[in-house]
Amino acid sequence: MNESLTLAQEALAAANDAKFVANNVWMLVATVLVFIMHLGFATLESGFVQKKNVVNILFKNVMIVSIGLLSYYFVGFNLMYPGVDGGYFVFAGFGLTNPEGAAGLIDYASGGYTYYTDFIFQGMFAATCCTIVSGAVAERVKLIPFLIFCLFFVTISYPITGYWKWGAGWLDAMGFYDFAGSTIVHSVGGWGALAGALLLGPRLGKYTEKGIKPIPGHSMPLATIGVFLLWFGWFGFNGGSVLSADPGAVSLVFVTTSVAAAAGCIGAFLISKFVYKSYDLGMALNGILGGLVGITASADGVSVSSAILIGLIAGAIIPISVNLFDKMKIDDPVGATSVHLVCGIWGTIAVALFGNYGEGVGTLGVQLLGIAAVGVFTFAFAFIVFFLLKITVGIRVDAPEETIGLDIGEHQAQAYT
Amino acid sequence: MNESLTLAQEALAAANDAKFVANNVWMLVATVLVFIMHLGFATLESGFVQKKNVVNILFKNVMIVSIGLLSYYFVGFNLMYPGVDGGYFVFAGFGLTNPEGAAGLIDYASGGYTYYTDFIFQGMFAATCCTIVSGAVAERVKLIPFLIFCLFFVTISYPITGYWKWGAGWLDAMGFYDFAGSTIVHSVGGWGALAGALLLGPRLGKYTEKGIKPIPGHSMPLATIGVFLLWFGWFGFNGGSVLSADPGAVSLVFVTTSVAAAAGCIGAFLISKFVYKSYDLGMALNGILGGLVGITASADGVSVSSAILIGLIAGAIIPISVNLFDKMKIDDPVGATSVHLVCGIWGTIAVALFGNYGEGVGTLGVQLLGIAAVGVFTFAFAFIVFFLLKITVGIRVDAPEETIGLDIGEHQAQAYT
Amino acid sequence: MNESLTLAQEALAAANDAKFVANNVWMLVATVLVFIMHLGFATLESGFVQKKNVVNILFKNVMIVSIGLLSYYFVGFNLMYPGVDGGYFVFAGFGLTNPEGAAGLIDYASGGYTYYTDFIFQGMFAATCCTIVSGAVAERVKLIPFLIFCLFFVTISYPITGYWKWGAGWLDAMGFYDFAGSTIVHSVGGWGALAGALLLGPRLGKYTEKGIKPIPGHSMPLATIGVFLLWFGWFGFNGGSVLSADPGAVSLVFVTTSVAAAAGCIGAFLISKFVYKSYDLGMALNGILGGLVGITASADGVSVSSAILIGLIAGAIIPISVNLFDKMKIDDPVGATSVHLVCGIWGTIAVALFGNYGEGVGTLGVQLLGIAAVGVFTFAFAFIVFFLLKITVGIRVDAPEETIGLDIGEHQAQAYT
Repeated sequence: MNESLTLAQEALAAANDAKFVANNVWMLVATVLVFIMHLGFATLESGFVQKKNVVNILFKNVMIVSIGLLSYYFVGFNLMYPGVDGGYFVFAGFGLTNPEGAAGLIDYASGGYTYYTDFIFQGMFAATCCTIVSGAVAERVKLIPFLIFCLFFVTISYPITGYWKWGAGWLDAMGFYDFAGSTIVHSVGGWGALAGALLLGPRLGKYTEKGIKPIPGHSMPLATIGVFLLWFGWFGFNGGSVLSADPGAVSLVFVTTSVAAAAGCIGAFLISKFVYKSYDLGMALNGILGGLVGITASADGVSVSSAILIGLIAGAIIPISVNLFDKMKIDDPVGATSVHLVCGIWGTIAVALFGNYGEGVGTLGVQLLGIAAVGVFTFAFAFIVFFLLKITVGIRVDAPEETIGLDIGEHQAQAYT
Repeated sequence: MNESLTLAQEALAAANDAKFVANNVWMLVATVLVFIMHLGFATLESGFVQKKNVVNILFKNVMIVSIGLLSYYFVGFNLMYPGVDGGYFVFAGFGLTNPEGAAGLIDYASGGYTYYTDFIFQGMFAATCCTIVSGAVAERVKLIPFLIFCLFFVTISYPITGYWKWGAGWLDAMGFYDFAGSTIVHSVGGWGALAGALLLGPRLGKYTEKGIKPIPGHSMPLATIGVFLLWFGWFGFNGGSVLSADPGAVSLVFVTTSVAAAAGCIGAFLISKFVYKSYDLGMALNGILGGLVGITASADGVSVSSAILIGLIAGAIIPISVNLFDKMKIDDPVGATSVHLVCGIWGTIAVALFGNYGEGVGTLGVQLLGIAAVGVFTFAFAFIVFFLLKITVGIRVDAPEETIGLDIGEHQAQAYT
Repeated sequence: MNESLTLAQEALAAANDAKFVANNVWMLVATVLVFIMHLGFATLESGFVQKKNVVNILFKNVMIVSIGLLSYYFVGFNLMYPGVDGGYFVFAGFGLTNPEGAAGLIDYASGGYTYYTDFIFQGMFAATCCTIVSGAVAERVKLIPFLIFCLFFVTISYPITGYWKWGAGWLDAMGFYDFAGSTIVHSVGGWGALAGALLLGPRLGKYTEKGIKPIPGHSMPLATIGVFLLWFGWFGFNGGSVLSADPGAVSLVFVTTSVAAAAGCIGAFLISKFVYKSYDLGMALNGILGGLVGITASADGVSVSSAILIGLIAGAIIPISVNLFDKMKIDDPVGATSVHLVCGIWGTIAVALFGNYGEGVGTLGVQLLGIAAVGVFTFAFAFIVFFLLKITVGIRVDAPEETIGLDIGEHQAQAYT
């Protein structure tokens, strides 16, 4: 009998260990997928800008990833996940402070993953908020002031509002729901983008007395590569946000994410064709992204048919929103505010309309509160940082540099020879 | 004793659950890999077409993925896997009809994965058949008629013949073997491509009285990116077709798939050099794809040395086949018929020559029957749909539009500025 | 009681099996990630060369992967892992000689993976050493002599020195440590690159009486895609080198690898800005690669802060090294010797400075011995092969071909039309 009991205990421990290994593998795969989204943003944004500003936007994207990872290690992670519930602002100290390091486990009961896995998965998300901004301010922002903005934005602003929800802070305690970050990641980036675009003003020659002059991107293949890579990475972004390899939950997320992206494409296609009378590749691409942003808040808690509807509406929003921003003379070369801010808000509201999260979670009231609270904080933070940079070192290149392009102006280089 | 038994039962359940989690992770990773093949096709095809038709082919590829996923959700999945054995045509109803949804398990005994995992893995395959067609009809097909063709092809034709084999229909019952779809996916796409190319006719200026005029692709880096991404995705396409994470089976598939791709490159290289006297990058790239298509039917049931031979022959076929199609004045800008149809047939025959699948499975007779049955059905379906479109709305752009390019003609846009 | 014991035994077997499945899944995912590094190299190198030599470098990269995989199957694997400890040179026979094939297990005790998984993971590494060379000899090397060099280099040289460490040969027995190949893979490629660059001489017009003429790459987006894909693949390169899915070990490797890459970017940025007064995208990109190469030897055995320091120094080395090679008139169009050789040496030394591997492992003495032994063997091998090719068939294209470009000269083709 003793032998059986010992062996059964050994078997149970081995089984739990095996599940832990499988879970951790999935979270690491998700990490890798989120990482490649940075290439997706880099190619999307460089495809959508003019040839003369390509080196500059690539340089910014490369730097943002590097700055974001390191600053999240030094400060952001312990600001976002201080281990204190219900608060507004708590900091657990510099660096990775878990004494057990890689061997420290997160949530072993449900399969779990290591503390280092947790850090690196969250760390890959962090730089995203700045990358979103970089698209909206492209072709006219000064390099070093922009990188300084990013350093503050990713180190302080993003983790604080992130803590409010994902770190079990006050918004989470109130029942605000945002599965993988329609608000916490995408709207945050979008508010930063809006603040930057407003303070910079439009590109020279964009809004003239004769009307709005389209400034087409220099390479549609690059932009298309970007969107496919972002969709690819989104399987990790949403699928990893389950925070386990739970088969039912992750496979549902895969399905809702995929159909929302596809429906976003169709939504943008239909509005482009019937309202704006064109088969516009840029709109179809941004429609996919809109669908992805839209489903991100509720990918784990809606039916497949709801996901299609959420994506369809998000996609349909894109061409309308892009045109509205243009009418308001807010110049956003890649449509980042439409994709990440407007569809991020839509996705966060969709939680209340379509989500199944039980009593008191994700109600319309608390979702709107969350959107507003994160929005006000983030926009104010970004506006103030950009404004202080503007009145000190300046944030916009001068007109001759803008005309000749930032590649020559900032880098003495060209993207193509 | 009771305690031991209870604990042992608990341990066994936990162990089975852990295996289920690991299995499902692999199937989701395979799904992600198959997804990125759509970017592979988009970049390959856009690299192989002229600069003036790049927006158009990217637009088609983006739309095809979106249409394919949604139509597979609404109709295709339940047409392909109706759960009825041995039949010719059965439809299990619109949408995902499994009442358990994500929690419903497929084949728990062998490790298993969820019903939603099953859907999304198969859904990623579906649009492939249309993407293959899009390459062959590029640079002259009208946009909307082509998308209408795709809607019918992916919604009806692909799932029906897919059911014959993978849904346990009549071909499967007879012993036809096609592991991951040399016939069921690639030849199906190839027959559609052939029907389209025949009804459209060659591009203007391709076959002149002075002989065949090569129309080189506009970007070899894009085409190369495409082939590497397709090879990358094929690890999921073939590796996921094991339908479990069975270590022996999946690792064998990885090895056979890899060596066949490599041998396909060598085969195409040797024929290009010694027969056609050139070091042709396009042929080497298509040789890799030929090797991959060739091994797809038998990747789980041949020796490594057989896989090398299968790939070598597939690769050697490519330059010969491309030249034969040109002599027959069947114009295929990307070589899709050679890669997917001809090598798909070769791979299906190779099952009979090299495969080890036991008595009565994959005999030469039944393999030829399967090739013929799927070929006749698919070619007839595709031909009829294209023909009806041709005599009603027309399928070919007019000559001035073809000359100026479909980017301007259909999209009022350019790929590069 | 008997029932309990039997069930407990069954449960333990099932649990071990589940862990084996999860482990094997991770090793296959790592394999796929290492595979895509070949696309990373192809895009990086083609981005850094002139437009007239793009087809040629893509052709070489495609061929190298194919040759490398097949030669590793026929010879390399059994030369590198002959199963004999402590030796200098042992060969276990042609092909895959494990009688159990895919079902044969490696190291079942620690979770394990199959023999075929072992082969394909290692096989994906093999071609890397030649790909590194291809960058340094670009724009002037003859195609077929270079492919002959690669065949010898990957079939004989790489596996022999690989055996010394990873096959449990003499260097391993002495305590030399190189986790994932700063020396065994990257320096090996770097020594081959140096031998080739020396024997070829610089490109025409690079070093003139008026000084060093920069020859900028033709496409920075391609180069950027390359670096991000390499970083992406490096999660498999380093993460898979744990040779299991051990959660603590793999997640530590993910963290150290990521922060070293990010710090490499910052290191190169700082030196570029403050020493060379420019915001140089190429340097930032190579800084990332330098950080990755630098951490590769010790990613499993240093603290996160040490990893940042290792990466920062590696990145800082890049602009200095690139400039030193230029001053020595050793022309390397992509900076491969700086990235792979110099940072590979640095990473191998860093093991002694920062690593925690226990008594007698990775001491400065044995690390220097390993660097020297592998360096002398590899450089001599590569130099002799290139030299024999030089005095027989020649290794450099003639001046008119170099001027017109190798795309026209060797392939009668152009990368872009």
